Amino acid sequence: MTHALPIGSTIGIIGGGQLGRMLSVAASRLGFRSHIYEPGANPPAGHVADQVTTATYEDESALRAFGKSVDVITYEFENIPTAALDLLQDLAPIHPGREALRISQDRLTEKSFLQELGLQTAPFADITDAASLYAALQRIGTPSILKTRRFGYDGKGQARIMSPDDAAQALADMQGAPAILEGFVDFSHEVSVIAARSPDGAVAAFDPGENVHSEGILRTTTVPARLTAGQRTDAVLLAAKIANALNYVGVLGVELFVTDAGLIVNEIAPRVHNSGHWTQNGCAVDQFEQHIRAITGWPLGDGRRYADIVMENLIGDDMDRVPDLARTPDCAVHLYGKAETEPGRKMGHVNHIKRS
Amino acid sequence: MTHALPIGSTIGIIGGGQLGRMLSVAASRLGFRSHIYEPGANPPAGHVADQVTTATYEDESALRAFGKSVDVITYEFENIPTAALDLLQDLAPIHPGREALRISQDRLTEKSFLQELGLQTAPFADITDAASLYAALQRIGTPSILKTRRFGYDGKGQARIMSPDDAAQALADMQGAPAILEGFVDFSHEVSVIAARSPDGAVAAFDPGENVHSEGILRTTTVPARLTAGQRTDAVLLAAKIANALNYVGVLGVELFVTDAGLIVNEIAPRVHNSGHWTQNGCAVDQFEQHIRAITGWPLGDGRRYADIVMENLIGDDMDRVPDLARTPDCAVHLYGKAETEPGRKMGHVNHIKRS
Repeated sequence: MTHALPIGSTIGIIGGGQLGRMLSVAASRLGFRSHIYEPGANPPAGHVADQVTTATYEDESALRAFGKSVDVITYEFENIPTAALDLLQDLAPIHPGREALRISQDRLTEKSFLQELGLQTAPFADITDAASLYAALQRIGTPSILKTRRFGYDGKGQARIMSPDDAAQALADMQGAPAILEGFVDFSHEVSVIAARSPDGAVAAFDPGENVHSEGILRTTTVPARLTAGQRTDAVLLAAKIANALNYVGVLGVELFVTDAGLIVNEIAPRVHNSGHWTQNGCAVDQFEQHIRAITGWPLGDGRRYADIVMENLIGDDMDRVPDLARTPDCAVHLYGKAETEPGRKMGHVNHIKRS
Repeated sequence: MTHALPIGSTIGIIGGGQLGRMLSVAASRLGFRSHIYEPGANPPAGHVADQVTTATYEDESALRAFGKSVDVITYEFENIPTAALDLLQDLAPIHPGREALRISQDRLTEKSFLQELGLQTAPFADITDAASLYAALQRIGTPSILKTRRFGYDGKGQARIMSPDDAAQALADMQGAPAILEGFVDFSHEVSVIAARSPDGAVAAFDPGENVHSEGILRTTTVPARLTAGQRTDAVLLAAKIANALNYVGVLGVELFVTDAGLIVNEIAPRVHNSGHWTQNGCAVDQFEQHIRAITGWPLGDGRRYADIVMENLIGDDMDRVPDLARTPDCAVHLYGKAETEPGRKMGHVNHIKRS
């Protein structure tokens, strides 16, 4: 910890949602303060932060004041406007770095990067117009899925193509945005690895979790995942390879498809990840603290779990179940303090602790 | 949860130290906001609270504004001036209630209350002057300990009397404050029970922890404590008896001496307690969330632990050990964000998770 940020330093967090909120709480456990930067009013992270700035990502004077008030900058989402980062990077170190953001902000760049690392991905093609889409469908086939290259999350900005007849509508759905066609992968299940890398190059990974999605949104993560010992090792090594290639600092989420032909990388997220929320009740150092440790130069936790967990997201009307969940033994409740419940909105999660 | 406070409500917390800080974080997990009231500048709890009021307990307009801004009031320490409580109780419910505060603010009142409940305490006597002290020493003997009736914590306001020769100095040490003489108890070890009671009368207790003090300050709490099954049951029943007698709402700490003649109550604390910090890494619902659940009308957690823990306080220069502790497997670090390290000052704690 020679070069660790001193206790009492301030962590700047871009984005005031639930991830920023849980990062802020984790920072406090290590004696740090947090300053949240968020355009929206009443951000959930603001309830547990030392300071909050409410301003747009175009507000240069607010960005400058924020950058000067903090000792390190991190973020809870990857689609931060480039100009804001250009301004901030002169005021405080940004972790994870720009390269990780550049790659993960664009599905095409990300897939190309993974392929160059020798990792397996779904078949994909750059789509710029109808001609490139029809050519790609010839090669990749159906079913496949057309996605905007940027700004997609939780299933948004995506159109399934079940037969070539769907192509025109799918292209229209992109509304002219640059897109990527991805082939479907025949996988048995999805897992994710939450890995961390520190400035000195140390890498630690949590046990992979097994994810179940519905309507494009994560529903549950179960730890341990169904993986052979070999697959488990592969998953962790692959995440470490990505982190090292990016000279990454912080926590990284890597979603993987488990197939007969090995592990196929679905996507990477340069931040704490919903599928790592189980660590809050299963590990001495959870993913949020692990991220704060990495970006402040603290030693990483080793990632070993001391309990098996099923994490379940509370989405929209799932909030009606909170009274019952609060009465359920071995169930840890984590709510995000969002003012409005909306369909498809992540309102909280619970960690079911499994006794052996 | 029919009468539970709605999510998004604000918890008023009197006192901005580490207990207020950890209560604020726990409140956020249930979707609540916190408002801290603290006379001192830069309170640790303020780093993770939605609002902070910095004002004295004599500032009626600040107290009034605080009381109007919150939906329920709780506190992290029991020595709150009575006039402040008189003002606040008309603005929002105060939990735990005034009776619990009245009794626990005064060692003599507390011991008398416990005795009336049929519980065992150390022998004690009301000391008003030299004559009453010498008479009490005749009855109770030495070694014994003279304590101020009010405002003592972490060994402050106490004088040991090893022989009658020490009596005059001990009395002088009280500086004229009302005092109580307590006989020494021949105990094998000390344990504590952290219990909670909800408004509907439900009581839940965590597994008793075994405490080691040094220089009047708690050093470690180990769970499970060395207790027979019978002692364990007695400890929990005794805590429930106290909570019921006080019509208590919230978390209550009860320190017990384990002796050949049974369990002897040392003291009670009408709040979350240092010896309950282990629950943060050993239970689905920790003592801080349990307290918030009780005062907001949520169902109580059942208190069962899913890991064995040794909690170790970080006091003063123990902070120098943080880099090593951060590298220790299965060690969860909890720092309080205090600006200045001072000898005897509680700066943080760690929970060592014990794998079976």
